[in-house]
Amino acid sequence: MINYPIKKPQVVKATISVRNRGMDLEEAINQTNEYYVANDVAHIYKKPIPIQVVKVDYERRSAAKISEAYYKVPSTTDYNGIYRGRYIDFEAKETRSKSSFPLKNMHEHQVTHLENIRRHGGIGFIIVQFTLLDKVFLLDAQHVAEFWKRAETGRKSIEIEDFERLGRVVPEGYVKRLDYLKIVDEVYFK
Amino acid sequence: MINYPIKKPQVVKATISVRNRGMDLEEAINQTNEYYVANDVAHIYKKPIPIQVVKVDYERRSAAKISEAYYKVPSTTDYNGIYRGRYIDFEAKETRSKSSFPLKNMHEHQVTHLENIRRHGGIGFIIVQFTLLDKVFLLDAQHVAEFWKRAETGRKSIEIEDFERLGRVVPEGYVKRLDYLKIVDEVYFK
Repeated sequence: MINYPIKKPQVVKATISVRNRGMDLEEAINQTNEYYVANDVAHIYKKPIPIQVVKVDYERRSAAKISEAYYKVPSTTDYNGIYRGRYIDFEAKETRSKSSFPLKNMHEHQVTHLENIRRHGGIGFIIVQFTLLDKVFLLDAQHVAEFWKRAETGRKSIEIEDFERLGRVVPEGYVKRLDYLKIVDEVYFK
Repeated sequence: MINYPIKKPQVVKATISVRNRGMDLEEAINQTNEYYVANDVAHIYKKPIPIQVVKVDYERRSAAKISEAYYKVPSTTDYNGIYRGRYIDFEAKETRSKSSFPLKNMHEHQVTHLENIRRHGGIGFIIVQFTLLDKVFLLDAQHVAEFWKRAETGRKSIEIEDFERLGRVVPEGYVKRLDYLKIVDEVYFK
């Protein structure tokens, strides 16, 4: 890709914004993690999706073809790894709601897992993208657990005002698409 | 399962040994990790095997059936998690050799990954089972990296004497089938 000289920064900014909106959250985080790994900043990876393999065909000698398999429910969260000597663990979710993040997007064992991590001295959080608002938040595991508890009797979602008040906006960028470790620095290493 | 009174401990010991020998290493580690999680000792999980999904059929409304998929090369190691506030990362391998562990059982990026973890303040190691000897060792990532480096010009395996000298034997047991965290305590938290 050739980088032409930029004359109108406003236009470029708009382009980034539109591009990120179209790009899914997982891809943005994966690209950011690749940047972190390549620059030896952190070693955080997405876990593969768990799949139950039922049948494998060996048509060719070189490659096994899986011909019957099913998706399984993940037992933990999507991402984990190490940063500044600390264990990092998080789940990433998108919502098209403009007002709140429905908790039905999470599994109970994921909330429990993040709490376990926190209790054991790790860093646990969720990253939530409000796709239509083009806004991405990081929210600590402890808050997630509290909202989860509240949902037993009350509201079953986390309002955007709660994200504004208790979470942090994750900055979007060109090279580091979603520089969530900048927020991790501010929240957990201040 | 009913626990009958035990009259001959030697016989029982032999049974455990034979049973463990037949049981594969992955299963033994998974059961141990379940014990650790259930007792809130550590939160360590096996990562799912990465699979490239090519084709999905929606025969029934309830379940998606994957009808074409292929195994991918894992980008990191098999296991990671948190223990006593530290990030833990390891790879587990079996060999039927009675004298040495062939390094062709590892991928270069796994060795690099374990080194990265170590440099960033995490705990990285390999667990190697000499199946025919009924012996399981834990060896620190730094040693693995050194043997890997040596293999460029020299010997392409780690001899069992090296495991005896530089590693530790992982105790086998009934409840905790392979209590590798006991060794982690001794090696990394002494």
